[in-house]
Amino acid sequence: MRIHIQNRSASAPFVLTPAQWHAAAARAGETDHEVSFGFDTDAFTAAIAEAEILIASPSTIGSLLPFAGPRLRLMFTTAAGVDALRPFERLPPGVLLVNNRGVHGAKVFEYAAMALLMLNTRIPAYAAAQRRGSWEPQFLPVIRGRRATIIGTGDLGAAAARAARMLGLSTTGLRTRALPHDDFDRIRLIAELDAVLPETDFLVLACPLTPATAGLLDRRRLELLPQGAGVVNVGRGGLIDQDALCDLLDAGRLGGAVLDVTTPEPPPPDHRVWTTPNLLVTPHVSADEDPATYNAATLEVFFANLRAWRDGGMPPNQVDPGRGY
Amino acid sequence: MRIHIQNRSASAPFVLTPAQWHAAAARAGETDHEVSFGFDTDAFTAAIAEAEILIASPSTIGSLLPFAGPRLRLMFTTAAGVDALRPFERLPPGVLLVNNRGVHGAKVFEYAAMALLMLNTRIPAYAAAQRRGSWEPQFLPVIRGRRATIIGTGDLGAAAARAARMLGLSTTGLRTRALPHDDFDRIRLIAELDAVLPETDFLVLACPLTPATAGLLDRRRLELLPQGAGVVNVGRGGLIDQDALCDLLDAGRLGGAVLDVTTPEPPPPDHRVWTTPNLLVTPHVSADEDPATYNAATLEVFFANLRAWRDGGMPPNQVDPGRGY
Repeated sequence: MRIHIQNRSASAPFVLTPAQWHAAAARAGETDHEVSFGFDTDAFTAAIAEAEILIASPSTIGSLLPFAGPRLRLMFTTAAGVDALRPFERLPPGVLLVNNRGVHGAKVFEYAAMALLMLNTRIPAYAAAQRRGSWEPQFLPVIRGRRATIIGTGDLGAAAARAARMLGLSTTGLRTRALPHDDFDRIRLIAELDAVLPETDFLVLACPLTPATAGLLDRRRLELLPQGAGVVNVGRGGLIDQDALCDLLDAGRLGGAVLDVTTPEPPPPDHRVWTTPNLLVTPHVSADEDPATYNAATLEVFFANLRAWRDGGMPPNQVDPGRGY
Repeated sequence: MRIHIQNRSASAPFVLTPAQWHAAAARAGETDHEVSFGFDTDAFTAAIAEAEILIASPSTIGSLLPFAGPRLRLMFTTAAGVDALRPFERLPPGVLLVNNRGVHGAKVFEYAAMALLMLNTRIPAYAAAQRRGSWEPQFLPVIRGRRATIIGTGDLGAAAARAARMLGLSTTGLRTRALPHDDFDRIRLIAELDAVLPETDFLVLACPLTPATAGLLDRRRLELLPQGAGVVNVGRGGLIDQDALCDLLDAGRLGGAVLDVTTPEPPPPDHRVWTTPNLLVTPHVSADEDPATYNAATLEVFFANLRAWRDGGMPPNQVDPGRGY
């Protein structure tokens, strides 16, 4: 196939190099493709006229839309969340969209375990006390036996659930369909969210950002959480009303928050998320390993989807634009 | 028996109350003791003339030494580390010393898992970037497969090893005798420390502070750690040369440190540990649960040791002043 790989720039952190491609292609027995690499709009314009497959990040594709790809049949996104492509009506018609779901579990597993333990230990408060040079012990119960509610039961949510379960929390997963899931102690419908929030010690957001989930955790819902509850966001910043979250942290109603995603990213220098007490921000690193490992895993997912599609099947990671994931 | 319980003050965080005593004594079937409670030196002086057993924290006992207890036969410390009693020559002669080893594992397990993950994720650097309002992602490998070296194979060290193993690290335990230990992948003699340090991604200090371990991690040994290694201290601040540690963090030679113990405690307001980059300080909270849970567990350990002693045996938690633990 004729494949074009468009990188955001030559210095972007996850730039996909010819060396990485050739190593992955050799491992997969897929060395007979014609591959081009682009780093700017000119290279993209030249390549998209011929390419049958485009590989790029959602934000890179989003920045180039709309475009025509007369021979284009499949676009593979190097991230799992494709919200940066919205509105999907801009996508070239008739082109399969495939994401790289499946490479983030190991990292999110560790991040979720860390974030839950940090909230239970009140690390954000200790970090603030440290800046004041102040020794302010709080002797608190272990996390074992507490209750985690995880919104989203895909790769991220399931990894967070395995992390919570490893630490001895009870886990409730919220999903759109009432299907059981081995990684969760129980599954509830997302429509039951309001009933589950009051029974939550730690809320983990791990679902895609879609029109159905944008602003899902609004002020009213955040106020349904018990006094002192903690919030972890590894999904997308737009899932939660950040202002309401900051108000509830300011007031001491919530115990703490660990946000790996914000809206916008990065937040402007005067944004409240930088300074709200008991709120720790990390710069969207909860799901991505180091670039070499990440790119190798991403290309492995790509080739697996390519094989399924070439064999006449549906690529396992095909995105349904109607659902948005 | 005639038992005196000396609290540091009526407002100390772990004050042992008559209600807690009576509940624990009822659970243990030990309701026929004569018990007194003291909060100040006068109460202690009056009680110690008659007491056969003294229950108090090591620092409380240390602050009262030397004293004579004509009928005293056993002292039970409500902490595990008894370094605050040093020099042991001040202890009343012929009195058994018993600590409450065994109640800290669940908490240290969680703290060690958290600290290892925080160091691998570079949380101290993100916290500093947050204070600057700066979004500075680092995409780093997962912790699974990395190497933890744990000094001390007692309750704390074993709990830290179980936490590291749960996260997929390989674990090396250092102890004074070459006996295997199920919670570690391998055991090395503490005399082999210099050979193990260069093969360490994360060093966890979890041993007692004794004349043999004071300053164990001096500058020379800290410099044996690989570039970017992380250090966790849940033992005692005096185990490590804090100045050397801060120098190596300042220079970027070490990747980060999480210190739950320092020397002194608390550090004075102008101490470097408050401000050194990539160093997180927590106020000696890694091993102690909330006071109600902690005191109930402590008294359970006390009664178990009392029973063993009354039956003519050696209390399992008897401290050997020669070893210092």
